[in-house]
Amino acid sequence: MRTLIRDLLAAELPAESIEAAGWVRTRRDSKAFSFLEINDGSCLGNLQVIVDQGTPGSEALHKMSTGASVSVVGRQVESLGGKQKWEIQASSVRLLGEAPDDFPLQKKGHTPEFLRSISHLRPRTNLYGAMFRVRSRMSYAVHRFFAERKFHYIHTPIITASDCEGAGEMFRVTTLDPTSGKKQAFENDFFEKAAHLTVSGQLEGETFACALGNIYTFGPTFRAENSHTSRHAAEFWMIEPEMAFCDLTGDMDLAEEMVKYLVTEALENQDGDLSIFERFVDKGLRARLEAVVSNPFERVSYTEAVSILQKSGKKFDYPVEYGHNLQSEHERWLTEEHFKKPLTVYNYPKEIKPFYMRLNDDDKTVTAMDLLVPGIGEIVGGSQREERLDVLLANMERHGLSTEEYDWYIDTRKYGTVPHAGFGMGFERLLMFVTGMHNIRDVIPFSRTPGSCEF
Amino acid sequence: MRTLIRDLLAAELPAESIEAAGWVRTRRDSKAFSFLEINDGSCLGNLQVIVDQGTPGSEALHKMSTGASVSVVGRQVESLGGKQKWEIQASSVRLLGEAPDDFPLQKKGHTPEFLRSISHLRPRTNLYGAMFRVRSRMSYAVHRFFAERKFHYIHTPIITASDCEGAGEMFRVTTLDPTSGKKQAFENDFFEKAAHLTVSGQLEGETFACALGNIYTFGPTFRAENSHTSRHAAEFWMIEPEMAFCDLTGDMDLAEEMVKYLVTEALENQDGDLSIFERFVDKGLRARLEAVVSNPFERVSYTEAVSILQKSGKKFDYPVEYGHNLQSEHERWLTEEHFKKPLTVYNYPKEIKPFYMRLNDDDKTVTAMDLLVPGIGEIVGGSQREERLDVLLANMERHGLSTEEYDWYIDTRKYGTVPHAGFGMGFERLLMFVTGMHNIRDVIPFSRTPGSCEF
Repeated sequence: MRTLIRDLLAAELPAESIEAAGWVRTRRDSKAFSFLEINDGSCLGNLQVIVDQGTPGSEALHKMSTGASVSVVGRQVESLGGKQKWEIQASSVRLLGEAPDDFPLQKKGHTPEFLRSISHLRPRTNLYGAMFRVRSRMSYAVHRFFAERKFHYIHTPIITASDCEGAGEMFRVTTLDPTSGKKQAFENDFFEKAAHLTVSGQLEGETFACALGNIYTFGPTFRAENSHTSRHAAEFWMIEPEMAFCDLTGDMDLAEEMVKYLVTEALENQDGDLSIFERFVDKGLRARLEAVVSNPFERVSYTEAVSILQKSGKKFDYPVEYGHNLQSEHERWLTEEHFKKPLTVYNYPKEIKPFYMRLNDDDKTVTAMDLLVPGIGEIVGGSQREERLDVLLANMERHGLSTEEYDWYIDTRKYGTVPHAGFGMGFERLLMFVTGMHNIRDVIPFSRTPGSCEF
Repeated sequence: MRTLIRDLLAAELPAESIEAAGWVRTRRDSKAFSFLEINDGSCLGNLQVIVDQGTPGSEALHKMSTGASVSVVGRQVESLGGKQKWEIQASSVRLLGEAPDDFPLQKKGHTPEFLRSISHLRPRTNLYGAMFRVRSRMSYAVHRFFAERKFHYIHTPIITASDCEGAGEMFRVTTLDPTSGKKQAFENDFFEKAAHLTVSGQLEGETFACALGNIYTFGPTFRAENSHTSRHAAEFWMIEPEMAFCDLTGDMDLAEEMVKYLVTEALENQDGDLSIFERFVDKGLRARLEAVVSNPFERVSYTEAVSILQKSGKKFDYPVEYGHNLQSEHERWLTEEHFKKPLTVYNYPKEIKPFYMRLNDDDKTVTAMDLLVPGIGEIVGGSQREERLDVLLANMERHGLSTEEYDWYIDTRKYGTVPHAGFGMGFERLLMFVTGMHNIRDVIPFSRTPGSCEF
């Protein structure tokens, strides 16, 4: 039974006999013995193995090159001068699988573009191994955050016949062949109607919040937008909590609490994984994250934000005008330059926001909120929802939405309606924030973008 | 700030002033006061609220009918004769939202079919509220199980250009319009090639196991099969662990450990939710689950299983013949009648299993394994994977698979190949097992089946 290298390196006391396995990162040979550095993916650190000449299995040492897989049995001894506390004095070593000379990860210093082209191998590098361990750990932290608060996790549907927000290009899901050249009808499709991949689980999530109280979703979400930026992917994961008996303030409270919780998790529990991002990706990473955890967040209304921006004297590419959405450059200036801390902007003009957001008493703004963080901009967007049936119906008419198609959603306002609120957080956006990685393609195991659906 | 009814009912000591909110399940009026039973979805139990005539807000009592939403402030007092330990003596009560007389959940005793047609409202019933709380809790238990064992959670892609197993009907994902009547080409599609919804994350998961060691996936999976049974859905959630440096025995060990862990979770931590399934769905539920936890599981080879079935004298609809897959009736007879406990069948004939399973030394069987449980049949299917490059390539040729399309998968055997193994567990299958629910449509928030994609 192998011991994980992570556990082995963290042991208090040495084991007399221990088994480990992994992939060779480097090998150095001397006359009398060889050093193998092996990594098993359980942590960033490598295990150093000393193999004396004549050790059983050592006749295959010359094949234990970078990328080869090996297993080793030996004695755990204190490492003298090594980077780790422990190393292994091998009593036997075994080659499991060779890595021929064309193994693409021989040398260091590959470009992110090249590594994306070998997305099936890049988690064998230090940086991407760390990236996907962080992704795993942050996923679990998301679930733990909500479990501790007694939220129910709801699997909202991926295939949907409705289109949340009426916005966002959608992918079709079909069993019809679009290349057939024949005139086909959706009545003959699998679902006997047009179906799409979800752009948000919010509307379905709201129906569950209006039954179970506090719920969240965490699942894949899709946009068929022809965007070729470093921030857009066709498939990404989204976290969407929804709380019954909750208003905008409670919503902002939860969003801030969640960001702090997740950043704290990143700082405290990554077993050294964060260090590699600080070293190779973003020198100021830890300081930036620590500032987020230790400072109170700011809150300003959209109206105040526009006023601050207009008075700033700063030249923006897009002019700042009341009634228009804030651009990324505006958001980043506010959080990075002006407030120098995370910031929630709330109460946006109703004209620029979706139909489901609650109208304020001023009849001009809705209870929208965006949480902005330095280095990223918007990381959370949410709102209190319009719970008043008559106002919701008026909004839907104004937005040209069919009340027939959304009759099930309207039912939540018709039968025992309650104030409720929620938000969405793009999980990849969060990961870019906590690792400093610049491109969304590098925080997803296998990214899907226009023209690219490999593996 | 409201207190969850779950916390309120479980309190050790009463609170002088407490706020709660929820939906009215029933109201009984007498001259001097009314009893409101309210539920907020946090647990199965209702909170009883006593509202005296003249209490602020009580003038709206007549509107607080079944399905209406209310909030209440009051004193927590010991319940005399009630089902719960605590009740609330209201100091004020507030109607949040009425429920008109056409609220569909007025009376009890609706059919599952009717409740499916109002999937957005059914979590407001006792049974489905419990169902989706159990689903949430079991999801978290899955993540906790793997986190405790230091497995990394990997989000394998939902949209894929490959077709794991070469089996299973797939949905297309496209931005082309199949009803256009025009001859279109996949080169002009979003991904510039044909793309589908994944039927399994296994192959991508294997590439990550061959880098990070122990990984798992837990996400939505799709089958475009025109099945109208109570066990098939077009969209369902699957759990797929994959372990490097692991063989068939280790794989069976993990599967059994996981089933026991999750059943234990269902038994111990459902806050009374399980009781409603035992009462209304499956009288023997708890006994069946307890038997699973307390007995060691059985293991027999496929060859032994066939022999036992053939000697049984039992008349099956499908004859039992070596070289054919076991039918559900065979599996259920083995686990329910013969062994009377969970059972893993392993080493199946290579002809009936996919290309990626490891060939045994007999050259006849592969290291497949299916874990069968009473009441359900197969709940887990897995295998040790073929790690030998030459054998894998021969298998692929035999199965008519393109080595070009799967070059990335083959790379895992070409560069530092390792013995590895994994399995898949259908999450809905597990939920049906732990709740006794008979139809997969009733354990998914919004089910997708042929001709049905509502909400």
